[in-house]
Amino acid sequence: MYGLIVKLTSAPGRRDELITLMGGEDSHTVPGCLSFIVAEDAVDENVLWITEVWESQASHEASLQAPAVKEGFADAGTLIVGFEKIATTKPVKNSSHPLHGEAAA
Amino acid sequence: MYGLIVKLTSAPGRRDELITLMGGEDSHTVPGCLSFIVAEDAVDENVLWITEVWESQASHEASLQAPAVKEGFADAGTLIVGFEKIATTKPVKNSSHPLHGEAAA
Repeated sequence: MYGLIVKLTSAPGRRDELITLMGGEDSHTVPGCLSFIVAEDAVDENVLWITEVWESQASHEASLQAPAVKEGFADAGTLIVGFEKIATTKPVKNSSHPLHGEAAA
Repeated sequence: MYGLIVKLTSAPGRRDELITLMGGEDSHTVPGCLSFIVAEDAVDENVLWITEVWESQASHEASLQAPAVKEGFADAGTLIVGFEKIATTKPVKNSSHPLHGEAAA
């Protein structure tokens, strides 16, 4: 497995737009994406934390080539003012419940 | 939802023991735990990243009272040399595939 923890900072007051952008594609439909958590920072109203788990680094890199993702990055130009890769990881345990209202894969 | 991102540093060379400890209780069996990702840092061989998603802060706090968790913390005394809460979060999107070999909830 391959993982990332990323800290995103939106332009002031625009975190909700960034959430919409990040949630634009359901990860259930992204090949090789095992988990994709988008979480608001509890303190900084402009910060989002992304925790990703992929089957492999290759599947992650392939996802970045998808047209929807490329378009998303283009839209994010003025929306994202900070992008900090906190960690690149090798996930070893990934226990998840699908949320209520979300279909299991 | 309530979330945490935590950076743990094991005593030198003892990360595997820490993984075993962290994985001692399957989060499927922990009430209110929606996701629990344990990931090795790709660079620092003694660092683990934990990303947690809980139904509520209350369910997280309740989990800390479980006997197995309390025992785990007791065992971790010499094993964990660094505990850094990177972020407290409000997860807003949590898309997950159960891993191969893990039963869906």
